Parts: sequence; C-alpha cells; structure tokens
Amino acid sequence: MLIIDALQYSNWSRALFEEMRHGGLDCAHVTIAYHETCAETLRSIGAWNRLLELHGDLIMRVRDVADLNAARAAGKTGIVFGFQNCSPIEDDCQLVEIFHALGVRFMQLSYNNQSPLATGCYEDRDSGITRFGKQVIDEMNRVGMVIDMSHSAELSTLEAIDYSSRPIAITHANPSWFADVPRNKSNAVLKALADSGGMLGLSLYPFHLKDGSNCTREAFCAMAARTAELMGVERLGIGSDLCRGQPASVLSWMRDGRWRKPAEGGAADPAWPQQPAWFSTSADYGNLAEGLERAGFSGAEVERIMGRNWLDFFARSFGPAQRPSRNRRE
Amino acid sequence: MLIIDALQYSNWSRALFEEMRHGGLDCAHVTIAYHETCAETLRSIGAWNRLLELHGDLIMRVRDVADLNAARAAGKTGIVFGFQNCSPIEDDCQLVEIFHALGVRFMQLSYNNQSPLATGCYEDRDSGITRFGKQVIDEMNRVGMVIDMSHSAELSTLEAIDYSSRPIAITHANPSWFADVPRNKSNAVLKALADSGGMLGLSLYPFHLKDGSNCTREAFCAMAARTAELMGVERLGIGSDLCRGQPASVLSWMRDGRWRKPAEGGAADPAWPQQPAWFSTSADYGNLAEGLERAGFSGAEVERIMGRNWLDFFARSFGPAQRPSRNRRE
Repeated sequence: MLIIDALQYSNWSRALFEEMRHGGLDCAHVTIAYHETCAETLRSIGAWNRLLELHGDLIMRVRDVADLNAARAAGKTGIVFGFQNCSPIEDDCQLVEIFHALGVRFMQLSYNNQSPLATGCYEDRDSGITRFGKQVIDEMNRVGMVIDMSHSAELSTLEAIDYSSRPIAITHANPSWFADVPRNKSNAVLKALADSGGMLGLSLYPFHLKDGSNCTREAFCAMAARTAELMGVERLGIGSDLCRGQPASVLSWMRDGRWRKPAEGGAADPAWPQQPAWFSTSADYGNLAEGLERAGFSGAEVERIMGRNWLDFFARSFGPAQRPSRNRRE
Repeated sequence: MLIIDALQYSNWSRALFEEMRHGGLDCAHVTIAYHETCAETLRSIGAWNRLLELHGDLIMRVRDVADLNAARAAGKTGIVFGFQNCSPIEDDCQLVEIFHALGVRFMQLSYNNQSPLATGCYEDRDSGITRFGKQVIDEMNRVGMVIDMSHSAELSTLEAIDYSSRPIAITHANPSWFADVPRNKSNAVLKALADSGGMLGLSLYPFHLKDGSNCTREAFCAMAARTAELMGVERLGIGSDLCRGQPASVLSWMRDGRWRKPAEGGAADPAWPQQPAWFSTSADYGNLAEGLERAGFSGAEVERIMGRNWLDFFARSFGPAQRPSRNRRE
C-alpha cells in the first residue's frame, strides 16, 4: 500500500528515517520553517541536503510524482519540503519562485498569528487575504507551490480557497466538531475545500483529537468516516503532525518565535503532548489503515486515504500552471 | 519661533539641509525605512551617520529634547530618525530596544498594507492590533519609541490608541472631511487621539489636501482651525510629508516594495505630485505660520502648532517609561 504523510516535523536522525522505512512510509511532507527568515531557511535546506546525502539509502528528495515513484521503486522514503509560515519569503513576492526551485512544494500563508498574507487561527480578528497575500497566491499558482491553510483563520481560509486558481490543502487538521480547538476547521471550510478539489490531511496531533492523547483509534476512524461523508473520500489524506524527539525549546520556538519576549524566570517550560498509543511513531501507519478498514472503508478507500489521494493531488499541484497566471495590479 | 516638522522624506543633500536652515527649521523627523529589513535599515542609519558627519555644520542628531535645544542653540537643524513601517524589526520584539538605542524615535505599526502588527489603510479589511502588535506596543511604551499610525487603518488606529499606555502620534495626515482619501482620518480617530494626549501632524502632501496641488493656504489653515476645535490646539503640529528631489523609482518602492512584481513593460512610471506653491520647500514654514495667524490663531497658538506642541510631546515620549512595562503573556 502506498503511504504518504502530508506533515511531519521531527528532530531528524537515522533512527527516525529507519522508523519511516519500518512503517512503509513512501513519502513525507516535512516542515523546514516556522518563523525562519529567508537566510535561515536556506540554512535549513542546507541541513536537509546534508541529511539526504548522509542517509541516501533510506530517504530521497521528492520534487514531483516521478521522484516519488522512483523513491518507492528504490525502497526509500521520499521527502517533500514545506513551510508552515510565509516568513521565508519575507516581503518579496519573487522569493516564491526561488524556493520552488529549491524544492519547496507547500507554504502556509500564516502560522498561528497574523502574517503579511493572511490571519492565523489564534488572532481575535481575521482580515482575510491581504493585498500582498493575493500577489503571493498568484505566484504560488503560477509556479506550482501548494497553498496550505492548516494554521490560518476561517475567513482567510475561505478567501484563499476562493481566490486561488488551483486547489489548496489543509495538510494537518481535523473537523471542529471532533475537537473544538482553534486549529480545527468548520464544516463550512471543509465543504468549500472539498468543492474546490482541495485536500484535508487528518491530524494525529493530540491537541487536535477528541480526548487528546487518550483518543481511541475507533473514535479517530469514525471521525474519518463522517468527514468522508461531508467531503468525499477522495478529498481525504493523512497529515499526522508527528513531532518526534523534539525538545521543549522547539515547542517554544513554534509558539513564540521571536514575536514575544521569553517568559520571565520561573515560567514552566511548555511540554509536548504524548501521542495516542496506537499512533506514536512512523511505524504505526499499518495500525491506522487497519482502523480505517474496521470503520467501514473499503480496501480501495483505505488506499486512497493512506496515500493515493495525496499522490493524485501532488501530480496536479507540483508543476507550473497550465494557463498563464492572472497576476494583476490594482 | 521654534519650528518642528514631524515628517520629511527627501533625497538628502547639502542643498536641502541649507534649505532647512533657510526656513528656520529646528528639527525634522526623517523617514529612514519604508520596507527595509533589519540589515537594510542598519545601512540606512549608516548612511545618515555619514550625512551627519559631513554636514555637521547644518544638521545634528536628536535623541531627546536636550539634543533638540542644543541644536537650536547652535543654529542647526535637529534630525530625529523614524520608520514608516515595522519592517526593520522583522519578527523580533527585542529589536525595538536596539533601534531605540540607535536613535529611532518613531515607528509606524503598518504602512499601507497589512503588517504582522496592524492593518494598513489600503486593505479591504482591518483586523486591528495583532498578538505580535500588542507585544511591540508594550515594548515601544517601555523604551520610549512613539507609535505612529499615519498609514494604518481605522480599527487598528483606535486599538493602538486604546492599548498603548502612552500617547501615540499620527505624524502626517489630515481629517477625512478635508480630503476623503484612505490616508486621512475620521473624526472618531482624531477625537480618540486628542482625548488620549496624542498628536496629529497636519500634512502638506498634495494627495492629502483638498484640491491637491491647488489647495490654497486659506483652505489649509481653515482646516487647521476646524481641527483645533475638534482636538484642541495643543494636539496639533505639522508633519509636512515633504519629499524633495526623489526620483519616481522611490515612489514605486514606497507603494510596491517587493510585495508585488514590477509592472509589466509599458506601464507608466508613477509621478510625484507637485507641492502647493505656498509650501513647496523647507524654506516655506514662514508662509504657513503667516497663514495660520490669518486664519485666526493667536501668536501663541501659531507657535504651538509650528513647534511647541511637538517639543512638549517629544519631552514626554522619547525616554523610558516611568512605570514598569505591563508586558504580558496570554
């Protein structure tokens, strides 16, 4: 079975790449920036290039579906680069094309906070897609970089779906009715996403789950079944949000970046949540697939959710637009 | 008469500094960044340091009112650094203190577009002061950097006035009823600004004037009188927005930065507007003062508008907060 995970962010090591192989993972979209500037992101890519060089027997860079098929044929896990924020492009529309050339295939228009492009899901108010945001969407559409609204607020997400000329993704989130947290999505968003040909990656991150770390496989897979009724099974994939082996300092970086000062002495370190026992590492995709089948999905449907849908979406999304871009000036 | 201009942005040269002296200008707040990154802004400061070295007989750096008084006593024009955008601090709250140490005394929370801190006046929607924005206001309040909302949108401006523990400024704008353009301000904003002890610098930039370049001195000064009725004369100063000797490429930089691609070939260059004949250079402050007196202001009131009010505001604003900051974590 083809397995694609549309979001992982781990403290990468040979042991984790071996774990991916053990779980039969064919391809992972990995996060290489949260709040990093352009120059910092180039260094992240440099560090990844070194990992790809050192562990080339286990992993392989993926820029398109041909690469992904080659990785699979060679028994390696394909690696797709992505950003969870727009910080790497700074204020420069033309950096989109440059990062695409360096292999970046996903970019979130905002992380949790307001960005120059869109609003994040932890802000009090949502101003939607901004003037700069429209320029960047045009450019992402043109070159073939997927717009990811996983951490964005409701109006911004609806506007991105509407404005983008190509389908977008929410690589890692669940429906709000499953767990009512700012990161999960309303039915209105999920329906608009599905109607436009976009993709939802179901998240296994405990803060996005009913009952958190105690979420059962049955509850998760029943949620997948109900979401498939709303969106269509062909619009669903996995975006586990697995964060393996990361220290608490990385959680602080994700949440606080440099936008607020470090907490005054004495504040407790934030703690990473514990994964549900049935999905705690990259070796557990088989458990998940089994749970989906028990929840009533057919074998073909399980294959779709576990990887085929993302493969189809990657094939449609990672290359340049067929039609000329509609870049407009006001 | 003490003369302070709370906004100039020119293509600086010895001839322009001589013009300032000719007009009796005691102090100018000069823009050193529109869309510049942190590193680019350090180079702008470097370039200014060189100007201050080469033309030290005409101009002098001003960090506080003692410096301003010293400049005046020496017959020089004091120079206060300011940003028209938050781009120099990038994503780092702690760069506020660093730029303050380098002499920066004003920062706009946004230029025309959405920023990570606040919304600009050309966006369709206004999300107000963001999570990062509140952290930055706390820090600006703490170190003594003035929050300037000249180019920000209505809700963002009202929230900045409300959230800031120290009075803020709109260094260069006029009332919307005088010229109904996105850059001018509603009576609600002007009233809230005045009630909080903030300052409005009246703008002489043609796009902010009734009848543009043909605006008469009488119309401008009558506007000043009506604004004084609304806000109180002690809340008014001058922020001429004089942009002397700048090429069209600089206007493109101000408007477009790097956030949208250069216009496709054939698009006409934008053009700078022509100043009204009675206020076209730094030598014309006397004309303006005379017009204010003819509009019914007393001699003492004219002195307030031409410089005394800004002097009082600088004295209250450029030093560290008397009380500890209220930096909060959510």
